[in-house]
Amino acid sequence: MADKYSIINGQFYKISEATVLITDLAVQRGYGIFDFFVTVNGEPVFKDDHLDRFFNSAAIMRLTPVPTRVELTKLIYGLIEKNNMPDSGIRITLTGGYSADGYSIAKPNLLITQNAFVYNKESFHKGINLVTYNYQRQLPQVKTIDYLQAIYLQPYIKEHKADDVLYHNEGEIRECPRGNFFLVTKDNEIITQAENVLAGVTRKKILSFEEFNAKAKSVRLEEIDNAKEAFVTSTTKFVLPVLNINGKKIGNGQPGEITTKLFEKLYDLRMNRKAS
Amino acid sequence: MADKYSIINGQFYKISEATVLITDLAVQRGYGIFDFFVTVNGEPVFKDDHLDRFFNSAAIMRLTPVPTRVELTKLIYGLIEKNNMPDSGIRITLTGGYSADGYSIAKPNLLITQNAFVYNKESFHKGINLVTYNYQRQLPQVKTIDYLQAIYLQPYIKEHKADDVLYHNEGEIRECPRGNFFLVTKDNEIITQAENVLAGVTRKKILSFEEFNAKAKSVRLEEIDNAKEAFVTSTTKFVLPVLNINGKKIGNGQPGEITTKLFEKLYDLRMNRKAS
Repeated sequence: MADKYSIINGQFYKISEATVLITDLAVQRGYGIFDFFVTVNGEPVFKDDHLDRFFNSAAIMRLTPVPTRVELTKLIYGLIEKNNMPDSGIRITLTGGYSADGYSIAKPNLLITQNAFVYNKESFHKGINLVTYNYQRQLPQVKTIDYLQAIYLQPYIKEHKADDVLYHNEGEIRECPRGNFFLVTKDNEIITQAENVLAGVTRKKILSFEEFNAKAKSVRLEEIDNAKEAFVTSTTKFVLPVLNINGKKIGNGQPGEITTKLFEKLYDLRMNRKAS
Repeated sequence: MADKYSIINGQFYKISEATVLITDLAVQRGYGIFDFFVTVNGEPVFKDDHLDRFFNSAAIMRLTPVPTRVELTKLIYGLIEKNNMPDSGIRITLTGGYSADGYSIAKPNLLITQNAFVYNKESFHKGINLVTYNYQRQLPQVKTIDYLQAIYLQPYIKEHKADDVLYHNEGEIRECPRGNFFLVTKDNEIITQAENVLAGVTRKKILSFEEFNAKAKSVRLEEIDNAKEAFVTSTTKFVLPVLNINGKKIGNGQPGEITTKLFEKLYDLRMNRKAS
């Protein structure tokens, strides 16, 4: 692919020339937040939900000033046009800025990058396997750039023949590093952890579907044993069936009925833009 | 001060022009490690301890290739000479590199920066106040670039009229964000947490002083109440008396006798280079 453009503080840069000074607090102290959404036919999907979360993350981490919603929206559409890339993933990052003392928050740097992305339904049918790990994300309500543990755990995931890790905190289920986790109980209740997880946009949509009985509550590891279905949600994963956890099949080891219905509903909503 | 030089992957850059691409895994995912030491009269203090830890952190985080010890030492002396700055703090950072997919570890970027630093004994006499907070650093044995929680907590520290935060994990004392924590008991035992803290170089020296009775063991918050003295150690703090924790005086609220003796021993060792 040709060298794509990114945006740093309002200016276009080819990605091969898009840089920040090494004094940035992201490089020095891992301090920054981001959000990520996809575009379909040149339109950001669930844009307002993502921008709401972006501004909320920035506020909690005291990253200021931030661009206005109008400015940010203009930059996003400008980048889609510049790259001529209607189907993509767009990441908006806000770093801690060029810190004079390497510790204090400075004026944030706003980075916007775009990559080609088209959802492939095959991934739904393939599903994934998970392995559990005892870990609580710090500042879980914020979409920070901190993925130290997740990247560190890649060999652990491979050793356990899994595709990703499912975090729990002393048995209390949390989330995957890049997706929320759901179970479907024997009573067809769809449940996901209520506390100390990222407020995923796909998770929020599923909790809002009136025809489904989805609830955020406390969910423990033991509940996996009796679950009929399990799935992970995220912007790139949509609704992704979990077929196996810690080497044990979920249900019959195939994408479940409710998972499939949820997927179809969400797919329709996102790809056919029946709602924003 | 004039624009200092830094080193990126073996090349000198003025710090105002020292950059990394925004695809670096430090910017994207907060993935990187570092070490930090001071130089006195152009000589790195406890260099081998810091380089040992640097290489250990890199290995645990699977950052490879790393420069050899000889190459790294040459770069460090080269930077001291280029900046003509014999008394300084030098930071060596190794990032996750320019990741193609924004998640997988790539060839690390090696960043070396230097700042003027001269220890001021006044800071010893002034001491500091701490406020406690329930938090366990992730991957505590590794000197990662993750300081999200520490920077996030700055307003909490100010609200509590403290200078820094002391982390504990459900009552088990850990460390400060940038320094190890010690107590002196009524029996003149010098104790510091054994587990799940950074292996500080100053901490290691203190534990090695034969004429002092210093031990690494489990230490709980309740033990602060009966302590005669408390102090924090780090490369820039040396031995720094803690006068007050959560608004309660330690001992008589002045630097204690054993803390002072330890400080003098360490000061002598570091500033007068009686040992390396």
